[in-house]
Amino acid sequence: MRATVMFGAGDVRIENVPDARLIEPTDALVTVTRACICGSDLWPYKAMPRSDTGTVMGHEAIGVVEAVGAGVRTLKAGDFVVMPFAWSDGTCEFCREGLQTSCAHGGFFGNPKIAGAQAEAVRIPQADGTLFVLPVGRDDALMPSLLTLSDVMGTGHHAAVTAKVAPGKIAAVVGDGAVGLCGVIAARRLGAEQIIILGRHADRIALAKAFGATDVVSERGDEAIERVRELTGGFGAHSVLECVGLDESTLTAISIARPGGAVGRVGVPQDEKMPASQLAFYSNVTVSGGPAPVRAYMEELLPDVLEGRIEPGRVFDRVVGLEGVPDGYRAMNDRESIKVMIKP
Amino acid sequence: MRATVMFGAGDVRIENVPDARLIEPTDALVTVTRACICGSDLWPYKAMPRSDTGTVMGHEAIGVVEAVGAGVRTLKAGDFVVMPFAWSDGTCEFCREGLQTSCAHGGFFGNPKIAGAQAEAVRIPQADGTLFVLPVGRDDALMPSLLTLSDVMGTGHHAAVTAKVAPGKIAAVVGDGAVGLCGVIAARRLGAEQIIILGRHADRIALAKAFGATDVVSERGDEAIERVRELTGGFGAHSVLECVGLDESTLTAISIARPGGAVGRVGVPQDEKMPASQLAFYSNVTVSGGPAPVRAYMEELLPDVLEGRIEPGRVFDRVVGLEGVPDGYRAMNDRESIKVMIKP
Repeated sequence: MRATVMFGAGDVRIENVPDARLIEPTDALVTVTRACICGSDLWPYKAMPRSDTGTVMGHEAIGVVEAVGAGVRTLKAGDFVVMPFAWSDGTCEFCREGLQTSCAHGGFFGNPKIAGAQAEAVRIPQADGTLFVLPVGRDDALMPSLLTLSDVMGTGHHAAVTAKVAPGKIAAVVGDGAVGLCGVIAARRLGAEQIIILGRHADRIALAKAFGATDVVSERGDEAIERVRELTGGFGAHSVLECVGLDESTLTAISIARPGGAVGRVGVPQDEKMPASQLAFYSNVTVSGGPAPVRAYMEELLPDVLEGRIEPGRVFDRVVGLEGVPDGYRAMNDRESIKVMIKP
Repeated sequence: MRATVMFGAGDVRIENVPDARLIEPTDALVTVTRACICGSDLWPYKAMPRSDTGTVMGHEAIGVVEAVGAGVRTLKAGDFVVMPFAWSDGTCEFCREGLQTSCAHGGFFGNPKIAGAQAEAVRIPQADGTLFVLPVGRDDALMPSLLTLSDVMGTGHHAAVTAKVAPGKIAAVVGDGAVGLCGVIAARRLGAEQIIILGRHADRIALAKAFGATDVVSERGDEAIERVRELTGGFGAHSVLECVGLDESTLTAISIARPGGAVGRVGVPQDEKMPASQLAFYSNVTVSGGPAPVRAYMEELLPDVLEGRIEPGRVFDRVVGLEGVPDGYRAMNDRESIKVMIKP
């Protein structure tokens, strides 16, 4: 089958790879009808060491179940499903607590061990726990928004939840990528009264406003911190959604949190140490977040997508076939595109 | 009056200083009947740069109100009071939210700007908001435990609250100083089922057990992490109370937290960057805490002290007069004493 393989930084190719197939009895085989490129795919795109075998990329997809292993009980061929970016058994104590990204028998898609979904088909381990059956047909107009339940919308929601967004509160979103934009949707959905987006790309800012951002801060560093303070009566935001993962953005996020406030991190941290540890301490700012248990959030977010109350699919501003994926990586990396959808 | 003045690392002297007096109309003047030395006083004791004027130390005390300014409404001479380690107006939005350590018009005792309480008397700014009137006489046997409401008991409670201790959960306490020991009391009080103390001093460990610790881990570093995992079914503790503030102890605290768990930091962080940022992220471990709003906790903790359900005063294993304070610093720094009480 055809699949997206990354061989090193900047080197993404569409290759013929062995067909995805059932291996464990708990597997499902899914034909991918929609996939996409994630902001987190850009980290290896910038820095992956050279590899002769490469990695089949992608951890977000919607598709049709083609076959299931003998141990799969809740799925059948023909089911239309969304896959979360992590697979999970659905039964361990972490899954039962709603933290499927720490499943005792789970893992992540799109790495040297488990092939990803930017491909014609994908093997889904622990299919009963992992896949979420959608109540729509394969050509539904809601497809882009449903696809975001795989990752970005659930991840933006996780940032908002772990930043403790609540009705009447002030939220600030650091980063105007697709996750940050979904963070704006999530903050509004959870009742934030004021939503400040920190970003500087005109197209993204326009979308942030459409999603409910009330204020825009285009400055960076100390100037951004001062600007947010001005916008928040001098004290900062109750809830800060960190949607980048760099040292500077994390420093900004902690610095604009109000004393007693919370930072929800969903940008994958690129450094082993966190800045502003003392500032967070002296202000009693909570730092929370991590890989979003998007599987747990699907049930909660689905009705809002189906009934059109939220439209996270608007983050997709480009659609490509598989052959267009390498250029899609380039376009996202060059900030030419917010997020690229793939129709394999 | 006589007061404890620190002039530099290791240099603590009892000096004659100008009498404490009312300055602002919102002040109270308090005669100190009990004070104590805090583990956090040992940081400057180890590292304070040389100063000719010195700092009047101390931020924990019980005493009698001698006089109040014209603007003080809720206190009168003769009131028996406990002072929290931070002063606060009691009316700003942070005070109303119960975060008095971020009071918009508050501050901390025992620094070059505001004299401390290891002295015969102390000036209390914002007295209405700061002081808590005790319903006991000045020679009550509960004095040691009441004195801990100034800082260590409230701080241990804050560690437990921010680490989200709840009935049936597993708690781990990093550090066997007076705050860590009060953290054990707090974890038990909030219903933790298993309480692991990480420490290695026999006298402190014995007290931790008396306070409710169920397990002791005397190893450090990777061995401590492994031992806690063994004690917790392989996953770590739901709630970790960080009561030291060093890079190594913070690394241990994050490493022994279970995925989705929480670390409550009350040890003053000695480094600007926090270790294990990526580990905390990948495990969705929340890092919270900071200077405890002990003023907010007094009302909650007082009945348990008055009725003898908790005995945090047992952390005091030495009592000195003012002249004995310099040796008290030495004894605590040498780990000869857990915590020193002062009768000025």
